[in-house]
Amino acid sequence: MNRKEFRDLATPDEARDAIDSLALEGGIERVPLEDARGRVLVARLDAELDVPGFDRASLDGYALRARDTFGADEADPARLEVVGEVHAGAKPDVELEEGQAAEISTGAVMPDGADAMVPVERTDTDGDGSEVLVRTSVAPGDNVMFAGADVAAGERALGPGTTITPRDIGLLSALGIDEVPVRAKPRVGIVSTGDELVRPGDDLESERGEIYDVNSYTIAAGVEDAGGEAVLYPHAGDEQEEMERILRTAAEECDLVLSSGSTSASAVDVIYRVIEEQGELLLHGVSVKPGKPMLIGRLDDSAYVGLPGYPVSAMMVFRTFVAPAIREAAGRPEPAAATVSGRLARQERYEEGRHRLMPVGLVTDGDGETLVYPVDKGSGATTSLADADGVVEVGPETDYLEEGEPLTVTLFSPDVRPPTLFGVGEDDPTFSRVLDGLENPRYLSVGSRPGLRRLRDDVPDVAVAAGPLEREGAATAAESERAEGRANDATVLGQWTREWGLVVQAGNPNEIEGLEDLVDRDLRFVNRTTDSGLRSSLGAAVADLAETRGADRHDIVDAIDGFDLGLRAHESPARKVIARDADAGLGLRETAERLDLGFVSLGEQPVRVLANPDRTEKEGVRELERALSDVSTE
Amino acid sequence: MNRKEFRDLATPDEARDAIDSLALEGGIERVPLEDARGRVLVARLDAELDVPGFDRASLDGYALRARDTFGADEADPARLEVVGEVHAGAKPDVELEEGQAAEISTGAVMPDGADAMVPVERTDTDGDGSEVLVRTSVAPGDNVMFAGADVAAGERALGPGTTITPRDIGLLSALGIDEVPVRAKPRVGIVSTGDELVRPGDDLESERGEIYDVNSYTIAAGVEDAGGEAVLYPHAGDEQEEMERILRTAAEECDLVLSSGSTSASAVDVIYRVIEEQGELLLHGVSVKPGKPMLIGRLDDSAYVGLPGYPVSAMMVFRTFVAPAIREAAGRPEPAAATVSGRLARQERYEEGRHRLMPVGLVTDGDGETLVYPVDKGSGATTSLADADGVVEVGPETDYLEEGEPLTVTLFSPDVRPPTLFGVGEDDPTFSRVLDGLENPRYLSVGSRPGLRRLRDDVPDVAVAAGPLEREGAATAAESERAEGRANDATVLGQWTREWGLVVQAGNPNEIEGLEDLVDRDLRFVNRTTDSGLRSSLGAAVADLAETRGADRHDIVDAIDGFDLGLRAHESPARKVIARDADAGLGLRETAERLDLGFVSLGEQPVRVLANPDRTEKEGVRELERALSDVSTE
Repeated sequence: MNRKEFRDLATPDEARDAIDSLALEGGIERVPLEDARGRVLVARLDAELDVPGFDRASLDGYALRARDTFGADEADPARLEVVGEVHAGAKPDVELEEGQAAEISTGAVMPDGADAMVPVERTDTDGDGSEVLVRTSVAPGDNVMFAGADVAAGERALGPGTTITPRDIGLLSALGIDEVPVRAKPRVGIVSTGDELVRPGDDLESERGEIYDVNSYTIAAGVEDAGGEAVLYPHAGDEQEEMERILRTAAEECDLVLSSGSTSASAVDVIYRVIEEQGELLLHGVSVKPGKPMLIGRLDDSAYVGLPGYPVSAMMVFRTFVAPAIREAAGRPEPAAATVSGRLARQERYEEGRHRLMPVGLVTDGDGETLVYPVDKGSGATTSLADADGVVEVGPETDYLEEGEPLTVTLFSPDVRPPTLFGVGEDDPTFSRVLDGLENPRYLSVGSRPGLRRLRDDVPDVAVAAGPLEREGAATAAESERAEGRANDATVLGQWTREWGLVVQAGNPNEIEGLEDLVDRDLRFVNRTTDSGLRSSLGAAVADLAETRGADRHDIVDAIDGFDLGLRAHESPARKVIARDADAGLGLRETAERLDLGFVSLGEQPVRVLANPDRTEKEGVRELERALSDVSTE
Repeated sequence: MNRKEFRDLATPDEARDAIDSLALEGGIERVPLEDARGRVLVARLDAELDVPGFDRASLDGYALRARDTFGADEADPARLEVVGEVHAGAKPDVELEEGQAAEISTGAVMPDGADAMVPVERTDTDGDGSEVLVRTSVAPGDNVMFAGADVAAGERALGPGTTITPRDIGLLSALGIDEVPVRAKPRVGIVSTGDELVRPGDDLESERGEIYDVNSYTIAAGVEDAGGEAVLYPHAGDEQEEMERILRTAAEECDLVLSSGSTSASAVDVIYRVIEEQGELLLHGVSVKPGKPMLIGRLDDSAYVGLPGYPVSAMMVFRTFVAPAIREAAGRPEPAAATVSGRLARQERYEEGRHRLMPVGLVTDGDGETLVYPVDKGSGATTSLADADGVVEVGPETDYLEEGEPLTVTLFSPDVRPPTLFGVGEDDPTFSRVLDGLENPRYLSVGSRPGLRRLRDDVPDVAVAAGPLEREGAATAAESERAEGRANDATVLGQWTREWGLVVQAGNPNEIEGLEDLVDRDLRFVNRTTDSGLRSSLGAAVADLAETRGADRHDIVDAIDGFDLGLRAHESPARKVIARDADAGLGLRETAERLDLGFVSLGEQPVRVLANPDRTEKEGVRELERALSDVSTE
C-alpha cells in the first residue's frame, strides 16, 4: 500500500475548511405545497395574481358610479335606477351606465361600470324597488376592496432562502401556488463496514463476536435531523471488492458518502485506495480526540468523510464536523436551541495536548442553573450516547477545567431535552417502574456505592441505595456506616424492601436450599459486582455463615465457584442461569418470577431513594417524591 | 333550524377545557427504527440482550486462567502451553484447561475456560511459540470487557414518553431493536367549505368571485408542525348533502375534524345539524376576537372544532386553542423556542371588552431588544400571515397597552424566525433584488410616504422612499420637503434612480407620446395610490403641464380618465394594460420591459434607502448597507 503522506495531523479548523470545500448542495427540486413545510425556497416568488383577484364589495348595499352621488345627502338623495343584483360567488350579469345601480352582497364581484358602493343603511328603495335613493355621496373606491389590495400581482411574496413555515404556506395558497422550487436535500450515503457488524433486527451470533451496527441508523437520523436525506447502503463487510463496489455506488448516487464501522487496517486501506484512484484525499488524520483517523476527500463526484468506528466517537465527529456542513447545504441554520450554556460540575483534567470532543450530560441544580458533567464510559460504549446530551469542545491548550467553568454544549440534536430528573445507583425493578411515570428522567444503574459517592459530589439529583440492615453483623455494619456517612446529608425520599437470594433453574432441579449448598457442593454460581447492594447483602450472609461455622470468611468465599466474578446488572446472573452457564445467580425474587426461574430466598433488604438536599425543591425531584409515595413502606 | 341555545359566549378557558375534554390521542403504532426519529415511545424498552454479547478481549495478547498467573512476575514468569488462536469476528475453536493459553486479538471472543487476558507486551514466547512466558499476574476479569458491561440484559434502556432522537436510535440499534412502539400521530381531517374556494393549482375564475383556499394547506401544515397527521378532504362547497357526507367520512377516519372556510349561514347550519344529530355540541361561540363563532363538539367518535373562515383568524384560533391539544395528544411538548418575550413598540388601544388574539410582528431594536408590533390589515388579508410572526393574547379587562409593555408572543410555529431586517416603503424592483441577497428580510410595500411615517415611529429598521427631485416645481418641492422633514434624522444607506412613465400596450399601438395624450385624448389610464413615489412624480409632471399650458392643475387631472383611482403595487397598472382594461398605466421602464409592454418615459426619480439612526449598527442593517453598495449611485 503506497499511501500519500500526511506528515502532520490537520487541525480541527483545517478539517472544517476541508469539509466546507466539498460541495454538498443537492440542487433544486420542485415539491408540492403540502410537502413544502420546513423546506428552503431557492428563488424569489412574486405574486402572479392579485389577491383578491377582483374588486370586491366590502358590505351589503348598492354598487354604483361615485359621480352619480356627488352632492347627495340625507335631504337631497341621488335617485338611481336599480338594474340588477350581484351575489357572492356569482359572476355579475349586469353592467352599469350613468344613473344606474345594482344591489350587491358582501364579498361579491363589483359589476362593470361601478366604481364604488354605498351600504344599504344609507339608502332607501323607492316603491317597487326599481329605484334606490342614495342619501350620501361616495368617492370612487369607497367600500370596495380592490383587486390586489391584499397582495398585488408583481409584489414580492417570499424571498430565496425562506424556510417555509405554515404561515408562508398560507401566502402561497392565496397566490394559488401549489408547487415550489426548494433546495434539494443533500443526499448522504451511509456505508458501514466490518465483518462483525449485523443490522438491528437480524440475528446476532455473539459466539462469533458479532455486534449490532449502531452507527448506520444513528448517523442516518443525524443526517435527517440536519436536513439531509439519508441513504443506507447494504452492509459491506471487510471483503475488498464488495466494499469498493458499494462505496462507488454510493458516490454515484449521493452528494456525500459517510463511512464508519470497521477500523481494521484492511478496510481503511481499501477506502484509501478507492479514494486515491477515483477521487482526491484532502485530509487524513485530524488532531482531535476522538476522531483522529478521520478521512476527508472526494470520491468520483461525491464528497467523502470517513468517521471513527466507535459509536460515541462517530456521533461526536459527525455532530461537530459534518452536521454543520449538511445544514449549510440544506439551507437550514442551526437552531438556537441546539446549544446550551452551563457550568462544569466538577474539575476535569486532560492528559494530552489534543483538541478534545467531550461527551457531556446536563442537569439543573437547585438554583435552576445548568450543570455540565462529562460522561466517559470509554468511546466503545453505546450507553454514553444515551447518557449524554451533547458535546463540549476543549482546545489543545487546556489541560484542566475548573469546577464552575462556563461551557457551551452543542446538543447531539436540537430536540434533545435535558432530563427533568437525574438519578444514579442500584438497579431496582420497583424504582424502574416508578421512573416510567416521570416526565423525562435519566437513571444510571451504577450500583449503590458509586451512586452514593456521586450524590456526595453534587452531580445527580438522587441516588438509590440498597443494602443490608445494620444489625446484620460487623462487616456489614461497617459497610452500612460508611454508606450512611456518605448519605448523611441526603434527604430520604422513599424506602421499601425487596427479597433477594439465589436465582436457580426453574423447579430448582439441583435442590439448592441456601448459601451452604454453594459452599459445600460443586455448583457454578454467578455473583454481582461489589458495587451492588445485593452483593453487600450476600457479603453479610457469608459473614454470618462463617460465624455460625466458626470458619474463616475467606475460606467460605473461596469455596464458592464464581464468587469473585461479578456482573453489573440485576438480571445478568439470572440470564447466565437461563443460558445454563451457571446453576445459581445472585438476584431478586421479582427477577426470578419474571423470567420463570426458581428462587431460593436469602433475606430482605431495604432500598432507599436519597435526594441531594439542595435539590429537594426542584420540580423533577418533587415529581419523584409524589410518585414514590405509592411504593414507600416504613 | 332548531338550534340549542348557548346564552352566553364561553370564556377562552372554557374553550380550552372543552378541547382538552375531547380525546385526540391516536393510539399506538409500531414503526421501523429508521422512521422512529421524533416519535414518542409508549412503553419502556429494557435491554433484551447484553452489549457486548460476549466476553471481549480488550487488547492483543493471551487469554488464560488468572489462577495460572498467580505469583508470576518479571523474574519468575508463568509458563503456559499455547493451544490456539482467536481472531475478532470468529468463533473460538479452543477451550482452555489448566496451564493453557490462547493467542487473542482485540475485540475477539474470550475462549471457554479463560477468565482473564494478559497483553502481549507482558509476555515472551518460548522457541517455536508452543509456549508463552507470562511475566505478570492478573486477576479474573483483567483486560476483559464482560458481556453486558456496556448495557446488561434486563437493564432499563428508554422510558415511556421518550422523544426519540438520534442518540436514542444509537442505543436501540445496539440492542438490535428494529421496530419500536410509538404514539400514533393524531389524525386530523381538514374540511374546507364555501362555494367560492378553489384549491391552489386549479384555475381561478375571479370574475365569479372565486378565491384560493388558504386555510386547508395552512392548517394542515400547522397540524403536522404540532405532531399530527393532516388529512385533506375534497373541497365541500356549500351543497348540504355533500358537506354532510364529507364531514361524516372525515369523522370516521380521523381523531379530530377541523372545518373552516365558508361563514355562510347555510354552511354553519349544516355543520350544526350534523353535530347535533351525530354527536354532541359542547360549545358554540367563544368570547374571543377573532374567533367568536368557534364550534367545539364531537362528531360520531371524532372530536370536532370549527375554525373561523378568514385565514388570519383561522390560524390564530388554531394556534391558540387547537395546536396545544394536538401536541398534547402527540406527546410532543411545545418547544421553548415557540414563545418569545418582547416589548410593545407603540401604545395600543382596544375598543371592546373581549379577549383578543392580536397578530404581531417582531423586530430587534438597536440595543438587541425585541420589539413587538401589531399587524392589522383586517383579518381577511392573507398577507397579515406573512407579515406577522405570532400571536399575543390580550385579556378582556385590558383596554390599552402602554408602549414598552412586556409581552409574550406565541410564534405561529416554533421554526418561525423573526426577520433579520425589517423594511417598509416604496415597491421597487431594484430593492427587491437587493433583498434577495439578504439573510431573512421582511419588507412591506406600503408606499413611500407611509414608509417614512412608520420609520419616524421607530418600528422598522429602514424605509425606502421614491419621489421627485426638489427642483421639479413648487407643489413637488413642498411634498419633498415634508418627506425630507420626516426623514431628517434618518441615515441614507443607499440611493439610485429609476425611469418612470407610462406603461402601454406592446408596440404602443395608440401612439401615446406623453402625459398630454392622456389629457387630450380619450384614453383609459390606471394610476398608483397617492402613497407611492411614482404618483408624486406624476403629480409634479401634471403641475408642470398645468404651468406650461397656463391651465388649472385640477382641470388637467379631471381630464385624465382614471387619474383618481390608484392601485397599490408597482406592477398592477401594467397588469391592467395587459388585461386591456387600460390603455396606459403609471409604471417603471423595468416593469414594462419585464412584461414585454411598451413604455413612454416621463422622467427619472431618485430612490433612497433610509435607516433608523438607532439601528445603523444592527447586523441586518449593516448587511443591507453592504448589499446596497453595489447598486447605489450618487
